[in-house]
Amino acid sequence: MDETSYLQQYRKEDYDRPSVTVDLVLLTIRDGALQVLLTRRQEHPFRGKLALPGVFVGTDETLDEAAERALSRKTGLSGIYFEQLYTWGALGRDPRMRVISVSYYALVPWEKISHPNREAEFYPVQEAADASDLAFDHAQIIRYARERIRNKISYTDIAFSLVGEEFTLPELQKVYEIILGVPLYKANFRKKIADRIEVTDKMTTGDKHRPSRIYRKKHLT
Amino acid sequence: MDETSYLQQYRKEDYDRPSVTVDLVLLTIRDGALQVLLTRRQEHPFRGKLALPGVFVGTDETLDEAAERALSRKTGLSGIYFEQLYTWGALGRDPRMRVISVSYYALVPWEKISHPNREAEFYPVQEAADASDLAFDHAQIIRYARERIRNKISYTDIAFSLVGEEFTLPELQKVYEIILGVPLYKANFRKKIADRIEVTDKMTTGDKHRPSRIYRKKHLT
Repeated sequence: MDETSYLQQYRKEDYDRPSVTVDLVLLTIRDGALQVLLTRRQEHPFRGKLALPGVFVGTDETLDEAAERALSRKTGLSGIYFEQLYTWGALGRDPRMRVISVSYYALVPWEKISHPNREAEFYPVQEAADASDLAFDHAQIIRYARERIRNKISYTDIAFSLVGEEFTLPELQKVYEIILGVPLYKANFRKKIADRIEVTDKMTTGDKHRPSRIYRKKHLT
Repeated sequence: MDETSYLQQYRKEDYDRPSVTVDLVLLTIRDGALQVLLTRRQEHPFRGKLALPGVFVGTDETLDEAAERALSRKTGLSGIYFEQLYTWGALGRDPRMRVISVSYYALVPWEKISHPNREAEFYPVQEAADASDLAFDHAQIIRYARERIRNKISYTDIAFSLVGEEFTLPELQKVYEIILGVPLYKANFRKKIADRIEVTDKMTTGDKHRPSRIYRKKHLT
């Protein structure tokens, strides 16, 4: 096959190739629960339904850039580091046409993102994951993200993404408990976490509670 | 925006949407080394270069179905379970046009796949990962797969995918050593693996070696 005929072949394929979107699962902890950012769709299909923020991937942007664009366009937020989650390609997941979605997720402390503007808002993952009226297969994507995070929290540092740079041990333990959905024994938790954290010379202040030591994530030297 | 105008909008987008491929990283252990299945490209671009088996995703097939089609079309093999690895969307990774690749990987015992037909053949991952003349970004995809497997072997059962249903402990240890790239202490290895395996009532036979006990993966009841 020569140069010209293979180009013709691909030009033919242009007409029946799938579209590609990027969809974001932005998670935070608020009011003691894992919450996910959703936007209310202004357009067909699923107009008026809640959906993950997402955009069609342009030919001149990488997937990561599309994720960044989806974030800023739908929420006004920027500079959040997303990791790729999974790519969804079931037939009929979008009623318009064949659409493949590359999903991304990020875990961010509530303080950093407490004021997304425009039409985005946080909802408890528990409700969103079981909701039957989310747009597309987005409830499934949220369930998948929750499962990935539950698996990763035991052998990675992702829990630290949900607290500030400095935290107390009760705060950190609460993050683990919320993600895992079970209470943990304080002594066991502290033993397991010991070699990932280091103490600072600061204490919490406040009238209500006894002062707590403040810790930070240990950085390997 | 009404039904008609949003459909027109998407029809316009048809012309500049990316293409999507599925690329497979099929790994096995042969001659004491992790090896990857590659095919020699018969067409532009990268004609004559080695590449991962792959196909363009059709509008009427899921990503998993495309993976299955890539496998059978390029190798004649079938029925191998692939897991999704990562989706690659760098600009210019394909010189023809914008192509996004959803990569998959599988670990399969050599006995199951020793005779792929057509143009596919196994090459040591060590060489393929560092080769500068593989097609597209396929060397990078192979490095990513190797890294994923190195990480997963410690906390999952994936090593069992590279041995038969029944195996000796030296065989299983060898799989870990090849993936991790380091020798392991026999006693430590056996302690770590103990609760994932169960002994059968069989022994290996043969003149050259002392008989070894045969084990199998423990199935949770």
